[in-house]
Amino acid sequence: MGVNSSDRPDGYRPEPTKQAAVAPAAATPIPSPDQEQRHHDVCLPPHMTTLQKLKKRLAEVFFPDDPLHRFKNQTGPRKLLLGLQFVFPVFQWASEYDLALLRSDAVSGLTIASLAIPQGISYAKLANLPPIVGLYSSFVPPLIYALLGSSKHLAVGPVSIASLVMGSMLSEEISPTHDPILYLKLAFTSTFFAGLFQASLGLLRLGFIIDFLSKATLVGFTAGAAIIVSLQQLKGLLGIVHFTGKMQFVPVMYSVFHQRDEWKWQTIVMGFSFLLFLLTARHISMKRPKLFWVSAAAPLTSVMISTILVFCLKTKLHGVSVIGHLPKGLNPPSANMLNFSASYLGLAIKTGIITGILSLTEGIAVGRTFAAMKNYQVDGNKEMMAIGLMNIAGSCSSCYVTTGSFSRSAVNYNAGARTAVSNIIMAAAVLVTLLFLMPLFYYTPNVILAAIIITAVIGLIDYQAAVRLWKVDKLDFMACLCSFLGVLFISVPLGLAIAVGVSIFKVLLHVTRPNTLVMGNLPGTQVYQNIRRYRQALRVPSFLILAVESPIYFANCTYLQERVMRCIREEEEWIQENGGSMLKCIILDMTAVTAIDTSGIEFVSELRKTLEKRSIQLVLVNPAGSVMEKLHQSEVLEAFGVNGVYLTVSDAVSDISALWKSEA
Amino acid sequence: MGVNSSDRPDGYRPEPTKQAAVAPAAATPIPSPDQEQRHHDVCLPPHMTTLQKLKKRLAEVFFPDDPLHRFKNQTGPRKLLLGLQFVFPVFQWASEYDLALLRSDAVSGLTIASLAIPQGISYAKLANLPPIVGLYSSFVPPLIYALLGSSKHLAVGPVSIASLVMGSMLSEEISPTHDPILYLKLAFTSTFFAGLFQASLGLLRLGFIIDFLSKATLVGFTAGAAIIVSLQQLKGLLGIVHFTGKMQFVPVMYSVFHQRDEWKWQTIVMGFSFLLFLLTARHISMKRPKLFWVSAAAPLTSVMISTILVFCLKTKLHGVSVIGHLPKGLNPPSANMLNFSASYLGLAIKTGIITGILSLTEGIAVGRTFAAMKNYQVDGNKEMMAIGLMNIAGSCSSCYVTTGSFSRSAVNYNAGARTAVSNIIMAAAVLVTLLFLMPLFYYTPNVILAAIIITAVIGLIDYQAAVRLWKVDKLDFMACLCSFLGVLFISVPLGLAIAVGVSIFKVLLHVTRPNTLVMGNLPGTQVYQNIRRYRQALRVPSFLILAVESPIYFANCTYLQERVMRCIREEEEWIQENGGSMLKCIILDMTAVTAIDTSGIEFVSELRKTLEKRSIQLVLVNPAGSVMEKLHQSEVLEAFGVNGVYLTVSDAVSDISALWKSEA
Repeated sequence: MGVNSSDRPDGYRPEPTKQAAVAPAAATPIPSPDQEQRHHDVCLPPHMTTLQKLKKRLAEVFFPDDPLHRFKNQTGPRKLLLGLQFVFPVFQWASEYDLALLRSDAVSGLTIASLAIPQGISYAKLANLPPIVGLYSSFVPPLIYALLGSSKHLAVGPVSIASLVMGSMLSEEISPTHDPILYLKLAFTSTFFAGLFQASLGLLRLGFIIDFLSKATLVGFTAGAAIIVSLQQLKGLLGIVHFTGKMQFVPVMYSVFHQRDEWKWQTIVMGFSFLLFLLTARHISMKRPKLFWVSAAAPLTSVMISTILVFCLKTKLHGVSVIGHLPKGLNPPSANMLNFSASYLGLAIKTGIITGILSLTEGIAVGRTFAAMKNYQVDGNKEMMAIGLMNIAGSCSSCYVTTGSFSRSAVNYNAGARTAVSNIIMAAAVLVTLLFLMPLFYYTPNVILAAIIITAVIGLIDYQAAVRLWKVDKLDFMACLCSFLGVLFISVPLGLAIAVGVSIFKVLLHVTRPNTLVMGNLPGTQVYQNIRRYRQALRVPSFLILAVESPIYFANCTYLQERVMRCIREEEEWIQENGGSMLKCIILDMTAVTAIDTSGIEFVSELRKTLEKRSIQLVLVNPAGSVMEKLHQSEVLEAFGVNGVYLTVSDAVSDISALWKSEA
Repeated sequence: MGVNSSDRPDGYRPEPTKQAAVAPAAATPIPSPDQEQRHHDVCLPPHMTTLQKLKKRLAEVFFPDDPLHRFKNQTGPRKLLLGLQFVFPVFQWASEYDLALLRSDAVSGLTIASLAIPQGISYAKLANLPPIVGLYSSFVPPLIYALLGSSKHLAVGPVSIASLVMGSMLSEEISPTHDPILYLKLAFTSTFFAGLFQASLGLLRLGFIIDFLSKATLVGFTAGAAIIVSLQQLKGLLGIVHFTGKMQFVPVMYSVFHQRDEWKWQTIVMGFSFLLFLLTARHISMKRPKLFWVSAAAPLTSVMISTILVFCLKTKLHGVSVIGHLPKGLNPPSANMLNFSASYLGLAIKTGIITGILSLTEGIAVGRTFAAMKNYQVDGNKEMMAIGLMNIAGSCSSCYVTTGSFSRSAVNYNAGARTAVSNIIMAAAVLVTLLFLMPLFYYTPNVILAAIIITAVIGLIDYQAAVRLWKVDKLDFMACLCSFLGVLFISVPLGLAIAVGVSIFKVLLHVTRPNTLVMGNLPGTQVYQNIRRYRQALRVPSFLILAVESPIYFANCTYLQERVMRCIREEEEWIQENGGSMLKCIILDMTAVTAIDTSGIEFVSELRKTLEKRSIQLVLVNPAGSVMEKLHQSEVLEAFGVNGVYLTVSDAVSDISALWKSEA
């Protein structure tokens, strides 16, 4: 406890050097190989009080990026400007904004608007909301993100996964057809909670919670959700009127084939033709990234062509269902529609948190992807606050959950967006649409929306990633498969929960069953490595050198004890069969033991006692700072004594061998 | 994928040696320090197919102790005998059993019987069961354990914690006073499920599940439960008739002080006198372990004295409640009382699993403690099967949950028990009691049972362990405190769940926020260590050497990226302020990175690309076998090229420096 960093605890190694010749005093940083090796003591980390430790720990947990480092050594007004830039990233680039940037942003903004309008309408239908809400959601949130967000390429608006999840979770308890007003209220309330949750994560710097959705999990989850969404679109594509509200594979397929009498050939022909058109456009853009505008323009083109088609042939195509009347005008305020009554509060909070996490994951992942391409940083915690605040504001202005969309951000990037102004241009285009162009959508057939959704979500199925997972990491593939099947056959939130559970189980399994490696000396070096992996590594007679590859915790110390005892037994059996000198010393290489808890300390202490009874010495090598400190505090270290702790395996081997020789 | 261990993948290091002089061919296992250092390649682990890997992995997870190693190279009849001994440990010692052993076992067996009879009655009352069930439970299970168990000192019977938990969980749904038959049936059914669960854990070799109850958790849990139990005994000690059935601190205390008019002075005087006597006896035995018989004999003595007292003064002590009539005779069969009806199945399974886990934890911990003292091994999985089978048998013969009791096993050990025969002697003594002595307990006052329980459980409060936890590991102390408060104020199963949650959270926190250390060279050696801990360690110009102290997982790769970029930024700032050569190479020491997943691989690959854009080279040092393999499979390794992976930091530094010099 009271050991200061300056008075290092001597006593673990008797003499700093054993060799006659002392190494040259002027230590060069790069040691030449023929230089004498000196022994160093294992020392404790610098002493810190409990409060200092807590402070350091909290700083590591919550402020790994040291967000205030820019404010160091700055003058007052400069600090103010930096603070303003910190809260509103818009001030970082606004002063340098010029016409050249505006031209790039205008082109990309208009391009994503042409995509955002049909997608907004489609995704709103996916969430069982009125189509107009999708357009509202493409107007207010992008404006707020432009002020607060730190990504230059993120295109903000409704996204498919969050829409799907909100739709499925809410419609499980409230019917969007029987009680549309209550449903709409709850959608806004969930959006409010999603925003609140996202902003709090950012404010409390708890962003690591979204890290628990591993990439493997997300690949499976997204693929499952994409298939569910596509199958749901068969309703629109086949023109079925009575369709299940459930989201699982089985009831959806049952519904499709049970309602065969409702299939309408006009709808089917039109739907599949446009689907083919959209998929071809997507394929062209994927083959040639320069032709990105082909797939970007395809949805709006389809909407226009199909609307004109239905309008001209309305007598012949009377079976095709259309969007119908949409109100003109800006987002109406919806703060008064937030419903905090106890009976639906639980549902709204649950839906909010799950859609909040999912949309946050997508938004931040997309932001990071394009930031990495252009080599700038996206601050995770600030992004969370930006996305959260934009959703809170959205919930008060008739918007539902929004985030950065992958497909539209990619188009934005390819179209040459340079700053968040492209979002403002897009919002302006949506504004014009809302104010003047709404009647044009009257004859837009619903089947075209289904085709747009299918084209968008089919791109989310990343089977190549799944193949890679299988090749590289079988357990990651299992997590992926579990979330895929969970979403497809059980339910969206449960599938997600299973996937997170598998991911956490994987971490725990690694901690519970760590590797214990037998080490040998690489000839001609002082390096000790696993003898199974390095065939040239040689065992050192009378020594058994074990490396434990994990923190020693309550969860693995029983296992480690069994494993170590088994290694000793096998070694002794081997010696009995093959002859050789008796086992006299176990060296535990603790380099990879990065932490220890009280159970672990007891394991080390018990192991020493057990081996002592069998006249075998236990030696620890290179315990990490925190491990050394805890061993010291619990007074276990003292029992190891003078020859019990060394800095390197080769120190330990040479020193103990020398000791044995001098004793013999 | 197809890399064989024999054809090691060259190409990661250009030349095996750079020095002019080649090391001597005869490599001694202990390298002398002045010997030339040779460079070795980093090699892949031996190639294995997916099936081989799975097999090895499963063997490591389920058979870490290689239980069948004794059967190797044995003849047929010998294998049979070994197999018999494997299933029934009784065959290991029965053939060598002699009179000397019997004498020791008889003394200890009778001693623990004198303790087991009053404790059995008391603990049954703690579980709200008829007192006679406690005696039944001290008869059948010890006999079965004597055949199957591998511990020599475990004294089997009812224990306080499991009794308390069963009592509290069952009585929350069924009243033991209003529906005693159903309550009894459910107690047997829960015991059946507890046994089934325990035996399955052993059979499926899933014993590591009980490892998740860390010692810190158990210290808090036991202390909380002991306080709850003691407070509950105030009912008996004060003579209160109407008492709450709840287990939380607040309602119990409310009940005690609200029913003050029911307090009876005769009961109180008698109770506190005997409590004082028992506590004094316990204190004497603790001070002088040789006088263990004082505390061992005290409960039976108290029972006898108080029974005689009540019998003689029955006219004056009419307010003191007594046990009353107990049926004579052996355990009646109870297999027909097992209740598997759907309405109570959930409760029985839940109670069974929780009491099963708790009693297993106690039994195995106690068995291991005394085995370690006498230097023999207790096989965890076999113990689980023994305890499980004894509970299944118990549930069919009117016994409730039993396990190895800590207090009685300690007495057994101190009284000189040598084999499991002491359990048989104890069972015989209980048999005599059941057949002939039951009427003697008619006048035994209930208050004495309360005093016995309090004395037994107060010893379980290990405040010294809590102080040690605080000193050594603050987070462990938090887990301890959470389980203590959870049990005391919320409920027993929820307290346990919270504690397990805190323990798992601790593991995850370590994985989510790993240490990233800046390393420097220890002068005169080839050792690189953390420069904060080793003040003499020197930075190497143009290099930044970072050690990551954790597996690289989905849960920490975002954090690690931020952390590494911050380290680079700080290093560059330092160079700007203090002058010095530009940063040209980042060395990532992966010694403690014991595993990697697909997200981690992406992190490494992205980091390399990001640094390349800034003209900084990234070098990996000593990746573990599985990490190396995955980097190879995902083709990330190829991008690192010739000078990208080294075996040691000093190899990397000297080789890259030499390269720079030759280029300059």
